[in-house]
Amino acid sequence: MDFFKVVSIEEALCMMNEKFSDMRVESETCHIRESLGRILSQDIVSAEDVPGFDRSTVDGYAIKSEDSHGASESIPSFLDMKGSVNMGEAADGEVKSGDAVYVPTGGMLPQGADCVIMIEYVEKLDEKTIAVHRPTSHLENVMRRGDDIKSAEVILKKGTRMEPAHIGVLAALGVSSVNVLKKLDFYIISTGDEVIDLDEDMEYGKVRDINGYALEALIKKMGGEVRGRSIVKDDFELLKEEVSKGIDSADIILMSGGSSVGSRDFTSDVINSFGGEGVFVHGISIKPGKPTIVGKASGKAVIGLPGHPVSSIFVFKSIVEEFARRLTGEIRNEEFVQAKMDANVHSSPGKRTYQMVKIGQYEGRTIAEPQFGKSGMISLLSRAGGYIVMDKNTEGVEKGETVRVYRI
Amino acid sequence: MDFFKVVSIEEALCMMNEKFSDMRVESETCHIRESLGRILSQDIVSAEDVPGFDRSTVDGYAIKSEDSHGASESIPSFLDMKGSVNMGEAADGEVKSGDAVYVPTGGMLPQGADCVIMIEYVEKLDEKTIAVHRPTSHLENVMRRGDDIKSAEVILKKGTRMEPAHIGVLAALGVSSVNVLKKLDFYIISTGDEVIDLDEDMEYGKVRDINGYALEALIKKMGGEVRGRSIVKDDFELLKEEVSKGIDSADIILMSGGSSVGSRDFTSDVINSFGGEGVFVHGISIKPGKPTIVGKASGKAVIGLPGHPVSSIFVFKSIVEEFARRLTGEIRNEEFVQAKMDANVHSSPGKRTYQMVKIGQYEGRTIAEPQFGKSGMISLLSRAGGYIVMDKNTEGVEKGETVRVYRI
Repeated sequence: MDFFKVVSIEEALCMMNEKFSDMRVESETCHIRESLGRILSQDIVSAEDVPGFDRSTVDGYAIKSEDSHGASESIPSFLDMKGSVNMGEAADGEVKSGDAVYVPTGGMLPQGADCVIMIEYVEKLDEKTIAVHRPTSHLENVMRRGDDIKSAEVILKKGTRMEPAHIGVLAALGVSSVNVLKKLDFYIISTGDEVIDLDEDMEYGKVRDINGYALEALIKKMGGEVRGRSIVKDDFELLKEEVSKGIDSADIILMSGGSSVGSRDFTSDVINSFGGEGVFVHGISIKPGKPTIVGKASGKAVIGLPGHPVSSIFVFKSIVEEFARRLTGEIRNEEFVQAKMDANVHSSPGKRTYQMVKIGQYEGRTIAEPQFGKSGMISLLSRAGGYIVMDKNTEGVEKGETVRVYRI
Repeated sequence: MDFFKVVSIEEALCMMNEKFSDMRVESETCHIRESLGRILSQDIVSAEDVPGFDRSTVDGYAIKSEDSHGASESIPSFLDMKGSVNMGEAADGEVKSGDAVYVPTGGMLPQGADCVIMIEYVEKLDEKTIAVHRPTSHLENVMRRGDDIKSAEVILKKGTRMEPAHIGVLAALGVSSVNVLKKLDFYIISTGDEVIDLDEDMEYGKVRDINGYALEALIKKMGGEVRGRSIVKDDFELLKEEVSKGIDSADIILMSGGSSVGSRDFTSDVINSFGGEGVFVHGISIKPGKPTIVGKASGKAVIGLPGHPVSSIFVFKSIVEEFARRLTGEIRNEEFVQAKMDANVHSSPGKRTYQMVKIGQYEGRTIAEPQFGKSGMISLLSRAGGYIVMDKNTEGVEKGETVRVYRI
């Protein structure tokens, strides 16, 4: 039994940052088609102007704007038709005073012209002459070269998680591959004599490995890679062997199970047996999730999560995901749904408290219904659509209060 | 030029539902490890009780509760130690009046016992006797068989999109594979004489294919499959050939480009040339995105999106994604971030108006800054983190108003 100090989530994350300040996430190159959800490892700087040429934003005639000045319905300006620009082709020739060249939407503005008058304001008198019924100003209906994006401009910042719109931006710039951070590698170990895998027969006294599968999905969803997953009995040598495998193949090893004090010591002993830093976080003031430990073994991060599935999910979201985010430097907007609580919920004094909620709609409002149940209960996971977080300095949330609901 | 009626988004979706009422999304079986993000095609019914046996929720002694009645610090109850239950093993023997059996957290409650008294309230007198210092009530510290989930209970509903917590629930139930809907197959065609692909050399007058890449990422993100992607010049026969390929390999064909009236007619002609229903939506009252067409060709859905990247993303979110959702029957909680607008934005009367915004933080509040720019502008996509939707019956959003920001 240990008597180490329980630290806050923020303290734990700071200690992790410090202990793993030498941990570097390498980068690799990938095609933009494969980049969805990946994190940029460097700024994207435009090598091209977009558009690459002055282009018309309407169907109309490219002219010199001064030729239209004073034009009206009653006194039009008459201009000479000098051909047309085809889509996707360079405009040849030059527009001189008194000339007009037809340009389709997106077409290139010919040399000499400084605006495009929309076809709606033009009357075609014959094959060679048009009448312009309205004045047009300098640069009207023109998107100039580089108006959208200028060459050498930083377009996407390092740390951006690639979304569909970003991929569109890269395509526009002619960028086909980007440098992204390698996916963080994880190794998952579920411990406990009672834990059996899906393909094993159920016997009295046994329970299925829930955390292994839930953690694997959480890791995939956050963009990590699972290098291995195993179930180990409560045996020092067997557990040490599995942790060794994890150290060899992954950056972060997650061990779950053993929520009792004795079992926690056991996990600590294994982490400490690798030499070096060993366990440096011996409990976190989070509810549920207190019996969480964090250590460094052979340079790798080893995190001991609680055995209860609900607790282990909360610790994953608050510690593992957040640690990964700091490692990768991901630029991130917190995503949540705002909802009104439909019942009072008490928090635990001095602890950051997590509460599962179900999101519902009531009279046009989004509401959050707290879902109660022992932290070992699985059905909580199927009922709840998200969770709320209560700070250690608050006493809870009252019915009617607006809360932020985070998705699992 | 066509003079067909422009319909509302809701009307367009209703028409699509009706025209494609014969479209069925098939289901397939997948392992729960591969099920993240997939949509359940049938209810999941528990075949097991969870837990599968009465279990202790604490480290303590299984006893008959009446043996502890009246027990106190000064007058304890004395009970006979009758061994212990090992984790993961069935409890043998029966607890009779006057007996106590040690049970660890999660261990199986032995026959005859109806509660567990925590070790904190027990004193071990010798190897054979314990003193109980507190009364314990019936079922205290016990989770009964099926307390969490009962056999034959519906645990996850058809239409659920699988999240990590759901995968944990299935593992708990011993379910290793599930029936999910097949991914919807898409085929993407970008049209236009000016459009070139990433590996082509840039020339004056050309533009990169942006929509092809952005749409591919949007489809992947929503859980669809892209069967093919191509760029086609404005040529009836070439376009018809590509649409044929799309019809052969996909459920939904997306054509983008040709935002001008003439080009739209051209796309319509190709869709109509396959016989059958042809084009039945000839424009949607959405801004930007009006020149959207929808048709049915050889039983498949063909959707003509605007060429401007920003418009085409909005039409994808409002029409394509929503159509897919209705086809699959996905149970969904709308996800958005609530923010305060930091500027006035006007909507277009009679149209559902979409406005790109940037999400920021100001004095502890989440704010939405509208991002303006011609709809053809790419930089909008890199600046904006999401968008707001203004209903056709509103005049816009005022500064300070709370809005829902959706992610692209």
